[in-house]
Amino acid sequence: MTESSERDARHKARMARKKALIDEKIAQAQDEYGLLLVHTGNGKGKSSSAFGMVARALGHGMKVGVVQFIKGAASTGEENFFRRFPEEVSYHVMGEGFTWETQDRQRDIEKAQQAWVVARQLLNDPGIGLVVLDELNIALKLGYLELDAVLADIEARPLLQHVVVTGRGALPGLIEAADTVTEMNLVKHAFKAGVKAQQGVEF
Amino acid sequence: MTESSERDARHKARMARKKALIDEKIAQAQDEYGLLLVHTGNGKGKSSSAFGMVARALGHGMKVGVVQFIKGAASTGEENFFRRFPEEVSYHVMGEGFTWETQDRQRDIEKAQQAWVVARQLLNDPGIGLVVLDELNIALKLGYLELDAVLADIEARPLLQHVVVTGRGALPGLIEAADTVTEMNLVKHAFKAGVKAQQGVEF
Repeated sequence: MTESSERDARHKARMARKKALIDEKIAQAQDEYGLLLVHTGNGKGKSSSAFGMVARALGHGMKVGVVQFIKGAASTGEENFFRRFPEEVSYHVMGEGFTWETQDRQRDIEKAQQAWVVARQLLNDPGIGLVVLDELNIALKLGYLELDAVLADIEARPLLQHVVVTGRGALPGLIEAADTVTEMNLVKHAFKAGVKAQQGVEF
Repeated sequence: MTESSERDARHKARMARKKALIDEKIAQAQDEYGLLLVHTGNGKGKSSSAFGMVARALGHGMKVGVVQFIKGAASTGEENFFRRFPEEVSYHVMGEGFTWETQDRQRDIEKAQQAWVVARQLLNDPGIGLVVLDELNIALKLGYLELDAVLADIEARPLLQHVVVTGRGALPGLIEAADTVTEMNLVKHAFKAGVKAQQGVEF
């Protein structure tokens, strides 16, 4: 596809979702649809809160998909725990070897795009009630993924599917598209006082 | 006990914890100890983030205690889910019938104090690695529990036990005592746009 036909396809997908939302709304007259939530800011709890929502969703009998865009950024504790439920949680840790310092930007872009392929599969699966895109904001901020393409895929998801995007520095376009945005701000942190990272809390 | 001998006992417990912390620090030279975390602010994610930490702690093989001070304030989803693991999670929903409007303040105080008895048992159990005190801030703010007594019990807990306190309007004295404080701020909320609460996300 050329770039412009790709853009048209995305626009079409977005409009189709908008129309489907409206049709669905009229049918249900209940405003029930999947939300797009963004957790951003410099404080703690962006990912933890998404994983709390995973527990909540599982408690409601939903299936959940998780893609971690930065390997090692989130806790191995959550991964260990939620991998206990392979029937209920589809858990993917991507982004291995992200340099963060863009020593090999092209390679990082490829890794991010591989992760997005996995994310898109989850976003296409109506059997999944909640998709967590952990640290996606970082990949977007670094320009490893194009916001427009990412938003089109998110907006084309099944009507009742919820999506949570985490990470510092959420792009304005993502905030605009989101239903709910929470900024986690640091008031006080033990690290600052020289306490080392604690297993079970920090990682 | 008289009020002043009670205060002396609390002070003693607090000092004993401080001394134990220092002794432990010298022994380990690693600054490893249980943290007191506070999640406050008007945004979403205060409780979710605490429940994400529950998943993390379970992933590290810890046992966890949860006390919900306001019945119905937190999600039934998390409760459903974490009650699947009765060997690993000691889950207590208290505060049934909290009026919130203090129509029967004396009764509410009794309920809060019953909840604190349960919390104190968890805070005394060295087998528990993480204690979640969900919406405790509300009970403190309403004056249903005395901050000084609550802090003394928290500070007298086992050295390696982590505690998370959630709820709007954390009292300054609690913030001062905490190792880490995160304020969850609302940037944008679907509710404001007239979308009704969504199962699996909001409750």
